[in-house]
Amino acid sequence: MTDHSHASDARPPADVAAGARGESSARPVSSTDRYVLSKIQARMRDAPVRIALWDGTTFYSVPATPVATVRVGDRRSLWRIVRHQDVGLGDGFRDGGITVDGDLVGAVEAVFRVNRAVWTANRRRRRLWMRSNTRGRSAANVGHHYDLGNDFYRLWLDRRMVYTCAYYATPDMSLDEAQEAKLDLVCRKLRLRAGERVVEAGSGWGALAVHMARHYGVSVRSFNLSREQVAYAREWARKESLDDRVEFVEDDYRNVSGRYDAFVSVGMLEHVGPAHYEALGDVIDRSLPPDRGRGLLHFIGRDRPAALNPWIRKRVFPGAYPPTVSEVAEAVLEPQDLSILDVENLRLHYARTCADWMARLEAAEEQVTRMTDPELYRTWRLYLAGSQAAFRTGWMQLFQIVFRRGGDNDLAWTRGDLYRGEAAPEQA
Amino acid sequence: MTDHSHASDARPPADVAAGARGESSARPVSSTDRYVLSKIQARMRDAPVRIALWDGTTFYSVPATPVATVRVGDRRSLWRIVRHQDVGLGDGFRDGGITVDGDLVGAVEAVFRVNRAVWTANRRRRRLWMRSNTRGRSAANVGHHYDLGNDFYRLWLDRRMVYTCAYYATPDMSLDEAQEAKLDLVCRKLRLRAGERVVEAGSGWGALAVHMARHYGVSVRSFNLSREQVAYAREWARKESLDDRVEFVEDDYRNVSGRYDAFVSVGMLEHVGPAHYEALGDVIDRSLPPDRGRGLLHFIGRDRPAALNPWIRKRVFPGAYPPTVSEVAEAVLEPQDLSILDVENLRLHYARTCADWMARLEAAEEQVTRMTDPELYRTWRLYLAGSQAAFRTGWMQLFQIVFRRGGDNDLAWTRGDLYRGEAAPEQA
Repeated sequence: MTDHSHASDARPPADVAAGARGESSARPVSSTDRYVLSKIQARMRDAPVRIALWDGTTFYSVPATPVATVRVGDRRSLWRIVRHQDVGLGDGFRDGGITVDGDLVGAVEAVFRVNRAVWTANRRRRRLWMRSNTRGRSAANVGHHYDLGNDFYRLWLDRRMVYTCAYYATPDMSLDEAQEAKLDLVCRKLRLRAGERVVEAGSGWGALAVHMARHYGVSVRSFNLSREQVAYAREWARKESLDDRVEFVEDDYRNVSGRYDAFVSVGMLEHVGPAHYEALGDVIDRSLPPDRGRGLLHFIGRDRPAALNPWIRKRVFPGAYPPTVSEVAEAVLEPQDLSILDVENLRLHYARTCADWMARLEAAEEQVTRMTDPELYRTWRLYLAGSQAAFRTGWMQLFQIVFRRGGDNDLAWTRGDLYRGEAAPEQA
Repeated sequence: MTDHSHASDARPPADVAAGARGESSARPVSSTDRYVLSKIQARMRDAPVRIALWDGTTFYSVPATPVATVRVGDRRSLWRIVRHQDVGLGDGFRDGGITVDGDLVGAVEAVFRVNRAVWTANRRRRRLWMRSNTRGRSAANVGHHYDLGNDFYRLWLDRRMVYTCAYYATPDMSLDEAQEAKLDLVCRKLRLRAGERVVEAGSGWGALAVHMARHYGVSVRSFNLSREQVAYAREWARKESLDDRVEFVEDDYRNVSGRYDAFVSVGMLEHVGPAHYEALGDVIDRSLPPDRGRGLLHFIGRDRPAALNPWIRKRVFPGAYPPTVSEVAEAVLEPQDLSILDVENLRLHYARTCADWMARLEAAEEQVTRMTDPELYRTWRLYLAGSQAAFRTGWMQLFQIVFRRGGDNDLAWTRGDLYRGEAAPEQA
């Protein structure tokens, strides 16, 4: 139930530990089951989320009406929660042994608010280092996620296939518009000029590279480990007649070569892992001229150091770690004497993006299930609900950091020009 | 000559070591003097700055025309440079034993560029901790600088007596306009609403507190250790009939009490010292409601950790330390789970501010000299020239960090509204 706990010492009864699969929902609820349920419900404090066993047993005593009921369909699912917390809950949802009636996002959000309160009360400060993403493992991690198939992502991403936080310049923007607005905001922050050379670490399906080349007249070299994405991006550039100015390279960011006017990476840093931040800093340093050049890092982050939710790590993003601004500044930028010009936190824009993605995923349930399987649909639905909740509760952040060579005085005088084309938004 | 070196091991001849005061400029230049000069000139590499001894001897061999000539008037001044580097050079200038013909700012800037190149080549990373600012020492440090007298600062600051980086929303703004624009930018970033309560750590002469109360309808409690500044600020608030809404407290920021909607500190953090960052974080935390509230820190900083120039520490700002963004984020904000929303670097605005201050100081040379003494005039002139050079070369930065309670979703949707009132600036 918490974002950072480890397997409990509690041991299930022998039949459960033995993995008694196929256990019927009709199996009677025991006094042990009820005791376990009461403990789980108590850990959720005042979160308005009711947990019910397969016979309807609940211990919900919060004064508020629950936003959702988590239905635990069998004893095995109950013990998975006890033994593996978030991972057990997530995998139960994935398998279908656990279902949620009501507001899935609201339920996760309520639990995250409790977790956050517990954690804030417990002010120990820790730096957490994840397993190291060697080049071989990076390729495996990337394959795990992104090679699910372009057709799968096309069902619920925007029309440009942008799989990172959108920027709703006005709150009434559609997902398509907001992704275009994000691409353009990144270009404006980079202050691209026609004829410049840009290197991108992490292409996705190529939308930013194509946008930069088409609208800002720059040439782009973009690195990506996902074969299927690279093939898609190359085809796109060809169709747009931009293949003379946009090159997609199927390779690791650590193999970036050449000198460029600007370095950009959108949505890759959270997959790099802190052990490789200094190496990333070296890549940026050797990609820019010695006395000038600038860059932008766009990444999911934290307000304080913490590991990513273990279920998300296990099922969705192996090897991922969302860093704090200080972790990135200290390990990536400071050793290279790169100067921070601008940091913006777009947290609520990512909550909104996840909501738009989730609505599209839900609308495409039948196709997704046919194309893949029900487990994958449920996994992605929970992951998008959980991400939305994490951004809404402030459990995760979205940072854009703009930096420059320290002594480079070719700076914009203010940030005003970033906004002069944008309409005034209504308050969200 | 460098910003971080220690006294050299070189020893002066016995007559100099004995402090042979009153040495005449006519005293013949020896071969040792010439050797020492050649070494100093060599350390300055390709900086276009010529150093000349009292008989005119130089070793300048850079192809470019020098921007300035540093005249060393006697042997004692020469050996002070060898023994105490920046401190010796600064004190020599202060005493008048060293003079500069030509562009003072350009000369310091050229030397800083050499220092920066040397330092960048030498990529060791260090965290430097300055002497601890206890409450007693803080009071002494503040007194050292700010109690020079309001009349002194009035001669060269803007009409509101704002002694921090101005914000030239357009490059043609006067210093008066740019300081008002800065006060207003801070208010907009804080998103102040009428009726709210604000606590300020470090009042200066009261300009921000008065601006917030007058233009944003908030009530302000502002803490400051300088008696003379507090008296001035109280009188100002009284004249403006704002004394019911603006309270100036002559006390240390660590004694801040009460709960407020917003916390603001402009130009104090660089005097706090890293040993007290966690305490400052505690002050911010206990000043804001548990579940909401926001704040802004405006401070002179660095791209990587380094001590302040030792001469500036000795003669101008004892106990000061300009931190990196990561040092502030890690020690002030992260332990309190405060969320970074926005970081802006206004480095070139501070270079411009220092240029405006220096021009006003130079115009007031006669009055300053009469009111204080020539040493103080020369000290302040070198300090403003050096600061300007430091900001121009990227040796120092000016950061504004806006933060919020982590789970607080009462956020502006974009930053566009910060700029909608501002005219489009010409490129600087």
